[in-house]
Amino acid sequence: MVTAFEAMNAVGLVAFAIVGSLKAVEAEFDVLGVGVLGVLTALGGGATRDVLVGRVPAMLQSTADVSFALLGVALAVLLARRVGTTLLDHPAVVVPDAIGLAAFATTGALVGHEAGVSPFGVVVLATVTGVGGGLVSDLLLQRVPFVLADDFYATCAVAGSVAFWVVVAADQSTAVAAAACAGSTLGLRLLAIRGNWRLPTVRLSAES
Amino acid sequence: MVTAFEAMNAVGLVAFAIVGSLKAVEAEFDVLGVGVLGVLTALGGGATRDVLVGRVPAMLQSTADVSFALLGVALAVLLARRVGTTLLDHPAVVVPDAIGLAAFATTGALVGHEAGVSPFGVVVLATVTGVGGGLVSDLLLQRVPFVLADDFYATCAVAGSVAFWVVVAADQSTAVAAAACAGSTLGLRLLAIRGNWRLPTVRLSAES
Amino acid sequence: MVTAFEAMNAVGLVAFAIVGSLKAVEAEFDVLGVGVLGVLTALGGGATRDVLVGRVPAMLQSTADVSFALLGVALAVLLARRVGTTLLDHPAVVVPDAIGLAAFATTGALVGHEAGVSPFGVVVLATVTGVGGGLVSDLLLQRVPFVLADDFYATCAVAGSVAFWVVVAADQSTAVAAAACAGSTLGLRLLAIRGNWRLPTVRLSAES
Repeated sequence: MVTAFEAMNAVGLVAFAIVGSLKAVEAEFDVLGVGVLGVLTALGGGATRDVLVGRVPAMLQSTADVSFALLGVALAVLLARRVGTTLLDHPAVVVPDAIGLAAFATTGALVGHEAGVSPFGVVVLATVTGVGGGLVSDLLLQRVPFVLADDFYATCAVAGSVAFWVVVAADQSTAVAAAACAGSTLGLRLLAIRGNWRLPTVRLSAES
Repeated sequence: MVTAFEAMNAVGLVAFAIVGSLKAVEAEFDVLGVGVLGVLTALGGGATRDVLVGRVPAMLQSTADVSFALLGVALAVLLARRVGTTLLDHPAVVVPDAIGLAAFATTGALVGHEAGVSPFGVVVLATVTGVGGGLVSDLLLQRVPFVLADDFYATCAVAGSVAFWVVVAADQSTAVAAAACAGSTLGLRLLAIRGNWRLPTVRLSAES
Repeated sequence: MVTAFEAMNAVGLVAFAIVGSLKAVEAEFDVLGVGVLGVLTALGGGATRDVLVGRVPAMLQSTADVSFALLGVALAVLLARRVGTTLLDHPAVVVPDAIGLAAFATTGALVGHEAGVSPFGVVVLATVTGVGGGLVSDLLLQRVPFVLADDFYATCAVAGSVAFWVVVAADQSTAVAAAACAGSTLGLRLLAIRGNWRLPTVRLSAES
């Protein structure tokens, strides 16, 4: 179980870094900016979660996660020169990115549960861990964050973390809850990609 | 005293959530984005303040504040479909929003005072608590934050928190200081709305 | 040694506040917004670093740094009315700004070293301290952060902090490492200004 989860996490770090770096290449950032955006997309969500629960961010202390993020940046630069940024919609990027979303949401839910936060806090920390890095990167790129405007993405992390605390509330172990969170986040995201799902917007009154 | 203050706080949470949600509806965010912006506008300032003084944000632990914020989101969605977003300038939104600004600035000043920060720190924490949520929401909406560019809004929180520490420095109780902060923030904001006050901008030399 | 460093820090605080305030004047923010942007540019990087390592930001506790930042804001307002914002590219602003970058990066590296973070963590904290305030200010001004897109600026802080931990790893004292960090950051930045250096962007494949 631990090994499968760690593999998902590593896949996610590389995929998130590729996504962030390619967006920065598209926006014509310089190589430092490309590196910063890649690393931030991969590690920013977890760092924000750690700050919220009063921990020093793991990325400042361990080096494994940083190495995966830097690997993603290097891959993105190589790929951008060969294939271009159309990769951003390619299954070879989108599926690992979904795996990362599931792994990160699950880590966030686990950290929240350990820190003794409320059910709402578990959802917030899972979602922040999953989408926080991409959201901050979009801000730096001066884009409206895609996770809030037009994609079925953060919703998967919200649903996964609700599954997490339903399982915990039913007196199951956190390992079962983590598997439920990762499975439902990943399954939902893959269905959303395949079906091109979008959440509805709020209809305004005709007069306004 | 406590009850009046708690009522002001609840009114503010609902009003801030309505404002944030309506802005997100205007920007055509999906329903998740509308919920996130509403909750963030209501709870983001307090969460930022808590992180700054080294606390786990209250919103991750208690559920009362979260409930008021979610109530505001629900009201905003209902109102948007019936009345539209012109509500944003309506007294039924603007006055409760002013009450919230006063309650939040006062909470920020009290937390800063307890944490033993400097007078400047009290002003920063009161202002961050009062306007931080709206400011982050404006960033996510890709708008120049209204509180910094063209409204007499954050200034009320600054003035209220200065009143707070003048009263504390005069050896009065923090309850008196809190009342002075809430009263002067609210009074100033209501006058500013009524008189359509704006701060001046800095005049540039004719040559530049 | 301490005195020279404190002088560099004070020069940097004033210069950073001038830069932030002048940008806000250019963007036609009101006087409160000009003050907030100036103070945030000067103190925001250090505050972010403190939050990352679990400290209450120094700016909430001491008053010396705040005074230098406010002095910079006052100077910026006076100068804007006399000279205009062309000052932003003037050596009288750009050179003190480089001194500040060196002082802030060095403080960040020292704080990271004391907190026992990884070498990557030292680089992150030095860079955040040096460029974090300007980066957040650019976000509030709705500008793509210049440090990521088209200037040889953050790179100097990265190089300086790498120098820091090379010297520490070679068993030298932190005072020597700090001098190496400050010297290499400042030297590199001055060369970059003089030579109008820019980092390359990533070339995309011809097809995309």
